[in-house]
Amino acid sequence: MSNFLVVRQGDTERWTLNDPATRNALSDGMVVALFEACLRAKADASLRTVVLTGGGGAFCAGGSLGHFASAIGQPLAEGAHDPLVDANRAFGDVLHALTELPQLLVVAVDGPALGGGFGLACCGDVVLATQRSVFATPEVTLGLPPAQIAPFVWRRLGDRAARDCLLSGRHFSASEACDLGLVNDVVADGEMEAALADTLARHRLAAPGALAATKQLLRRLHGPLPDLRDEAAIAFASALRGPEAAAGLKAFVRKQPAPWVEGGA
Amino acid sequence: MSNFLVVRQGDTERWTLNDPATRNALSDGMVVALFEACLRAKADASLRTVVLTGGGGAFCAGGSLGHFASAIGQPLAEGAHDPLVDANRAFGDVLHALTELPQLLVVAVDGPALGGGFGLACCGDVVLATQRSVFATPEVTLGLPPAQIAPFVWRRLGDRAARDCLLSGRHFSASEACDLGLVNDVVADGEMEAALADTLARHRLAAPGALAATKQLLRRLHGPLPDLRDEAAIAFASALRGPEAAAGLKAFVRKQPAPWVEGGA
Amino acid sequence: MSNFLVVRQGDTERWTLNDPATRNALSDGMVVALFEACLRAKADASLRTVVLTGGGGAFCAGGSLGHFASAIGQPLAEGAHDPLVDANRAFGDVLHALTELPQLLVVAVDGPALGGGFGLACCGDVVLATQRSVFATPEVTLGLPPAQIAPFVWRRLGDRAARDCLLSGRHFSASEACDLGLVNDVVADGEMEAALADTLARHRLAAPGALAATKQLLRRLHGPLPDLRDEAAIAFASALRGPEAAAGLKAFVRKQPAPWVEGGA
Repeated sequence: MSNFLVVRQGDTERWTLNDPATRNALSDGMVVALFEACLRAKADASLRTVVLTGGGGAFCAGGSLGHFASAIGQPLAEGAHDPLVDANRAFGDVLHALTELPQLLVVAVDGPALGGGFGLACCGDVVLATQRSVFATPEVTLGLPPAQIAPFVWRRLGDRAARDCLLSGRHFSASEACDLGLVNDVVADGEMEAALADTLARHRLAAPGALAATKQLLRRLHGPLPDLRDEAAIAFASALRGPEAAAGLKAFVRKQPAPWVEGGA
Repeated sequence: MSNFLVVRQGDTERWTLNDPATRNALSDGMVVALFEACLRAKADASLRTVVLTGGGGAFCAGGSLGHFASAIGQPLAEGAHDPLVDANRAFGDVLHALTELPQLLVVAVDGPALGGGFGLACCGDVVLATQRSVFATPEVTLGLPPAQIAPFVWRRLGDRAARDCLLSGRHFSASEACDLGLVNDVVADGEMEAALADTLARHRLAAPGALAATKQLLRRLHGPLPDLRDEAAIAFASALRGPEAAAGLKAFVRKQPAPWVEGGA
Repeated sequence: MSNFLVVRQGDTERWTLNDPATRNALSDGMVVALFEACLRAKADASLRTVVLTGGGGAFCAGGSLGHFASAIGQPLAEGAHDPLVDANRAFGDVLHALTELPQLLVVAVDGPALGGGFGLACCGDVVLATQRSVFATPEVTLGLPPAQIAPFVWRRLGDRAARDCLLSGRHFSASEACDLGLVNDVVADGEMEAALADTLARHRLAAPGALAATKQLLRRLHGPLPDLRDEAAIAFASALRGPEAAAGLKAFVRKQPAPWVEGGA
């Protein structure tokens, strides 16, 4: 059973992150599959709409460290090439590729959308969420910068709301995520399929070629954003190899407060 | 009777799009008149405020193809110069000129503000709308990109709301347009003159020179936006000469669904 | 008694603008002290949070002309160097330095936040305000451009809301400032200390190093903004030396309408 499902129906594809045991955490394999799906879609003139969703009652719990777990708190030898940088940057490539899709991208969130999952949602043209969904970028609470997602969060939410999420790591309900500017419409639990059908029907009024040309123009408008993929990957990898992440991830696993939580003013 | 009226009262000019038979659609002549009014205003140190509005119960129904109607669906000969590109770009020049006015620009919308009319509204410093007004950028539903207006919609509404309008073409009430960030204040039908008088009185507290200097600084802040006038004009003209627009505009005239509306998932 | 107080408690510093007689107007000395505090903080790895606030029931009433009062309406000799330009630019340096703090910056507003004080608030990562607080950028009503603050107002509020403030000079209640996007949370009068404690406790979940890295990435995103410090300083100084500011500031002192308020349409 693949952890990334592609189902085609007519001119619409549904892409499902599908690893319920991890709440669809982004494994290396899932990142590769998502990137390849974007490349395929970009070249497929017969494909008109992409729906990105998650299976098993979650959207996406964020990044999965996989075999890089052994790198936590382990500084790299001077001058050595860090494969973590490449792995993190590969996720940045996915976010870029999602925003470069010529098709309408609808993100359907039903359950937690955390960290990298929050970033994926920010790439949608339209974002729907059930009431029970929850949104957060908890990276800073683990000792990590929300590195690859920052530009996409900032683009969608603006500076004020991006700071509110990224610097606190706090949780937002679906309704709060709507006020933030992330979610377009909140739907009742269990009503996602009906809401998706409505959204897709409404957007069928748009001609595919005109829609792609419009998305291309919008992309050019935020073109002047510096491309932070390399910088973000380095910031992430060096944080993961540093003492904060070691302490933060250990505390998380033990369900204890991180060392920086106590004390202070 | 001119289709663009300029009425001066003291240090305020009211510019009225005035072709009620077409709901003030932007003919070539109207675009030229509007551009020339901007040039004149820019050089007129005695002019302090410009009110842009529409006559006969509409604001502006968008672009008018005029004699370019014959170009619909007609590809251009290889290497030939396309006068459609120039015509479309001329409208981009109007939008730029409106945002370069040193005067306060108040846009008063009473009735439909569609397509290019929606774009004109986005150039206002203050936008007032009566309750009965309606807002949409239906270009994509006709097979056309909302090309020249995209940067101005994006600047005023931000990325999320701009996508919501531009990629769906759907209609927004005045109150929804206020939530979107387009409209500053919604006023009761028939109360526009009173609301305009209040707005102008409030802004009379601002010194004209200081206001012009402030607008100049704000312009510099979105200066890094790439200038998309040429790119947008080419995107628009090639779409108009392609098969989507031919089918879309034909369906619109016949009040039938466009071919891309049916079928699919 | 200093007009700028720094109190350290654990890993948090509270910076208090403290000249109640002027409602904490930004004197040259206060600007220097604030800039130096930023430089010190930037180099202090043990400092985790900065709270910027005002003493005596005000946040900050804006700029103070100090010994430059004699420059009002006095054109500079051709080619002469204008110390006003340097003084105004020094305030721009403070705003930049505040946005470059690696620490979380919480701005606590209790009372008026006007002009430069409004600009200071826009630099906060989190902005709290009591109900009795009031916000405005009255510069244009005095014949002056809100020059140094414009980029920071624009970054935090977006184009529409920035125009609404900067071009009118009108007053906003704390609740309206929340709708504008300036204020994160409005708290009851007298409840600021409790609200601050809550905010600081919530942000203690964020690791200091990860937070600093995240702020660095966000800074890079608005890096493409042109640096307007020199341009803004020249715009401000030339306005102050011109006839509008002379008339506007005189009218303000006499509590009379400025000459440009009367007449017109």
